Amino acid sequence: MPEFVRSIPDGDTRERLLCPLCGHVEYENPKLVVGSVVVHDSRVLLCRRAIPPRRGFWTLPAGFLEMGETAEEGARREAEEEAGAEIALDGVLGLYSISRIGQVQVIFRARFAEPERRRLFAPGPESLEVRLFDWEEIPWADIAFPSVCWALTEWRRTGSGPLGQPGRSPPAEAPGIAPCVELPEGAL
Amino acid sequence: MPEFVRSIPDGDTRERLLCPLCGHVEYENPKLVVGSVVVHDSRVLLCRRAIPPRRGFWTLPAGFLEMGETAEEGARREAEEEAGAEIALDGVLGLYSISRIGQVQVIFRARFAEPERRRLFAPGPESLEVRLFDWEEIPWADIAFPSVCWALTEWRRTGSGPLGQPGRSPPAEAPGIAPCVELPEGAL
Repeated sequence: MPEFVRSIPDGDTRERLLCPLCGHVEYENPKLVVGSVVVHDSRVLLCRRAIPPRRGFWTLPAGFLEMGETAEEGARREAEEEAGAEIALDGVLGLYSISRIGQVQVIFRARFAEPERRRLFAPGPESLEVRLFDWEEIPWADIAFPSVCWALTEWRRTGSGPLGQPGRSPPAEAPGIAPCVELPEGAL
Repeated sequence: MPEFVRSIPDGDTRERLLCPLCGHVEYENPKLVVGSVVVHDSRVLLCRRAIPPRRGFWTLPAGFLEMGETAEEGARREAEEEAGAEIALDGVLGLYSISRIGQVQVIFRARFAEPERRRLFAPGPESLEVRLFDWEEIPWADIAFPSVCWALTEWRRTGSGPLGQPGRSPPAEAPGIAPCVELPEGAL
């Protein structure tokens, strides 16, 4: 396969990846990550990552939206795959853009679809461990990604009450993996 | 360039496009469209498309999010490119998944950044015409895409008041280009 070259196609305004032989334009666009803050008895479901990046750290059930899915379907699939959880979505909790890595994240607030079931969740192949945390128990120093902190903070703000406008990325989103402990106290 | 083949890579659960020579996996993911319902004096800004698909039909300033942009930055860029408009965003008006074409759309409610300016908008190269419409004037039969109708309906619902949860795609989203006149009366 020949190396793609960077060039501005006719009628376009920015550089794209082109195949120098056949002229195929390889558009690169940001990817959509969908996930959920799953709440049960005022506790939140977190998964400890079994895969890189950030193996061993805690995250929300979330992942890349696949072709043929709505954002809602993708979020339900990720909860099933990563946490063995069947969930029902309450609404949109956060809409986060992380432009330096080409991601937009849509995070829903959710609950278990059948909360009376005996076994509500179980780790999938991408999770070492899945459990429910009280707010006070959340392992802030071992959270995988800043957006997990943003979504958890948004959950804290809305509780189980009505959802309004989705939370958005902090304007001064710092590069790198910002430790959650840098979240402003006032935000919690 | 060799043809990609469809196969399930090791450790994956679904078919991807692979290069049979080098093993490169060509992930296909849904793309994010960002756009705005720009409101001025209770009128809404629409652009008549100069390019396919749906050339000659009216749409919102909207387009594919580019690498390196936040959703908000992309929406502002599209308003500038398609309508020559500098806008300020109020919040998220709609979050629409159109899974059959691999799109998720984030539509903001917006206004002109400097509403006192003499010339607020002008058609860009992708627009034949740009103008403000009262609700009663909206050319429903000549709207380019169903999601434009959904977003306009959501604007009608919120007016210039506070924005709550974003509107979502109708559950029974019909295939093909549904004429806006099929929107339930009660929704307006």
